[in-house]
Amino acid sequence: MNLHARRGFMLVLSSPSGAGKTTLARWLLQADAGFVMSVSATTRAKRGVEIEGKDYFFVDEKRFEEMARAGEFLEHAVVFGHRYGTPKKPVEEALAKGRDVLFDIDWQGTQQLAQRAKDDLVRVFVLPPSRAELERRLKERAQDTHDVVTARMAKADGEISHWAEYDYVIVNDDVARAQKELSSIVAAERLKRRRQTGLVEFVKKLGGK
Amino acid sequence: MNLHARRGFMLVLSSPSGAGKTTLARWLLQADAGFVMSVSATTRAKRGVEIEGKDYFFVDEKRFEEMARAGEFLEHAVVFGHRYGTPKKPVEEALAKGRDVLFDIDWQGTQQLAQRAKDDLVRVFVLPPSRAELERRLKERAQDTHDVVTARMAKADGEISHWAEYDYVIVNDDVARAQKELSSIVAAERLKRRRQTGLVEFVKKLGGK
Repeated sequence: MNLHARRGFMLVLSSPSGAGKTTLARWLLQADAGFVMSVSATTRAKRGVEIEGKDYFFVDEKRFEEMARAGEFLEHAVVFGHRYGTPKKPVEEALAKGRDVLFDIDWQGTQQLAQRAKDDLVRVFVLPPSRAELERRLKERAQDTHDVVTARMAKADGEISHWAEYDYVIVNDDVARAQKELSSIVAAERLKRRRQTGLVEFVKKLGGK
Repeated sequence: MNLHARRGFMLVLSSPSGAGKTTLARWLLQADAGFVMSVSATTRAKRGVEIEGKDYFFVDEKRFEEMARAGEFLEHAVVFGHRYGTPKKPVEEALAKGRDVLFDIDWQGTQQLAQRAKDDLVRVFVLPPSRAELERRLKERAQDTHDVVTARMAKADGEISHWAEYDYVIVNDDVARAQKELSSIVAAERLKRRRQTGLVEFVKKLGGK
């Protein structure tokens, strides 16, 4: 009997680009050994430094379509003509072993996950502290032309419009505070009664049975 | 506009006696200024040091019955011939002001709260680390006769049997860790999107509207 046996959960971090999601995700993976990153399957070509099974599972169109038809994806989508999807099996295996799985997906993928695995899903939306700051970060990042920044702001507005579909919201005005808040969410979700599968046997023993 | 405006929540801490619930509750009230303690109404006589409106609202049987019929209680029960109930109004006022309200009630009161205010409710069950330790604490506390301890263990078993009706479970084998876990739960619940009422206006502004 292992009191601490538990079922993992799927953590989705979504935000408009420029809100600091990627920094938070990288930090969480380094700071918390309980997490693994979800690896997507994709039909796009492998780039130089990418590693099969770590960055992506690279599959051809035919194989992707078979997997989609067989219901082997938790979510999938087309982006710039290439297909991307989250294979269900490795996620399910990780959750069963008590590992938590981090996802970097948008609101559309999140909606699909919610339909297929609601109980295992924890959705966190990261908001920028202000419109001015979001614009500043987008400008700084790309040193883009005015038109590109305007288009990105419009895209950010589209993403932000889905904030209310998430379970938790973090306003990222201070990285240290955002990290602390994310840690609290993770710690609390691990304390959820229904994830603490080891307690069933523990409570029997506690009751002298 | 106040970005940090939020709706409070009701935190129920339940456990068998001897699991450390009272120590945790006292610590939380001192350590976290966001919390107020729920004050019950009761028909029992006021004792020497008790303060009306702080320890209890002391009411007579007739008044209690009126309140019960008018639906003014979130939960109520009879204990040793006296009636006890949680008046709805002060709790509702606290929640609306963004204060969190701590309850020290058993599983029966918790079930009633869940029927009447599910969205505002956060249920935490505190388990002792082992049967031996629970027995040791009950013996130490009361220096009771063998029969009394046996009866209390039976009562504890009854309470523990409801552990699965709670949202979170803390195994109290180390006070500092239990405090940290409770803090994480509180912090996470405050980050729940639906409690962060100030975000609605904030997001409008963020979208340039």
